[in-house]
Amino acid sequence: MTAKETLAAWLRDAHAMEGQAITLLETQIERLDSYPEALPQLKRHLEETKTQRSDVEQCLADLGEDTSLLKDATMKLGANLQGMMHAASSDEVLKHAIGSNAFENFEAGCYRSLVAAAEQAGEPKIAATCKRIMDQEVDMAHWVWDQLPQLTQKYMAREEQGLAAKR
Amino acid sequence: MTAKETLAAWLRDAHAMEGQAITLLETQIERLDSYPEALPQLKRHLEETKTQRSDVEQCLADLGEDTSLLKDATMKLGANLQGMMHAASSDEVLKHAIGSNAFENFEAGCYRSLVAAAEQAGEPKIAATCKRIMDQEVDMAHWVWDQLPQLTQKYMAREEQGLAAKR
Repeated sequence: MTAKETLAAWLRDAHAMEGQAITLLETQIERLDSYPEALPQLKRHLEETKTQRSDVEQCLADLGEDTSLLKDATMKLGANLQGMMHAASSDEVLKHAIGSNAFENFEAGCYRSLVAAAEQAGEPKIAATCKRIMDQEVDMAHWVWDQLPQLTQKYMAREEQGLAAKR
Repeated sequence: MTAKETLAAWLRDAHAMEGQAITLLETQIERLDSYPEALPQLKRHLEETKTQRSDVEQCLADLGEDTSLLKDATMKLGANLQGMMHAASSDEVLKHAIGSNAFENFEAGCYRSLVAAAEQAGEPKIAATCKRIMDQEVDMAHWVWDQLPQLTQKYMAREEQGLAAKR
């Protein structure tokens, strides 16, 4: 695959991902009964996300890609972040890196919530432990984040040279 | 549920999550053939993660919880981030918030990789679009992140008062 073909394939993935983001946000907005203070930002980001999906479609059009099949691709993907993260695809190393960044942020969020829960429960020692772990997860997420550009470009360079790039 | 019971339940979830993190890191370390430069940090974080799992177990012991059943809980959870994110559980609103933080970071990582891919492909306009979208995803992730403590404490307060707290 050439760099442009790879780019187009990933833009199609991104387009499908935006479809999932829209579904996720719509579901949250629809079901958020007791926390209306979060609605304005969720709705704003939903509109932002719809614009992003259009922007990605325009990128594909700029590359000369046929965008008439995008809807099918979105349906095929399914609402499955897990699948995106762990797909044994040809660009597995990048899927793993992107998945790791998400997973570390997922963990960090769990611990951030746990810190608040521990404080509410009057358990400062547990709050301190969870805070320390949270900071480690954040550091790891930042590290993965820092690696992504050079990892992506190394992957693409190896792919173009016909070298093993998958993992 | 009292705040302490809730805290204990979430600490058990966190313990299971660390088990998943360890599996994920071990799989990545095992399969990372062409990118050995990432191994030291992955291995360091794997050790860190094992310590975190022990730390969480100690938190549970400090709460007077029986930790002999933790292994079963880990096995029951399965390797499923998706399940953790979208479980229609009693604390759904928090699962969604933590899941959103992860999902926005997932999206941000995809776009960060796309920026590098677009640059490698000689497509500066697409790189600029992806960069702009990436910044939006990062902003949204930060917003969710900022909400987590007060959302958690509001959830716990409602739960303790017998008010609807799930969503």
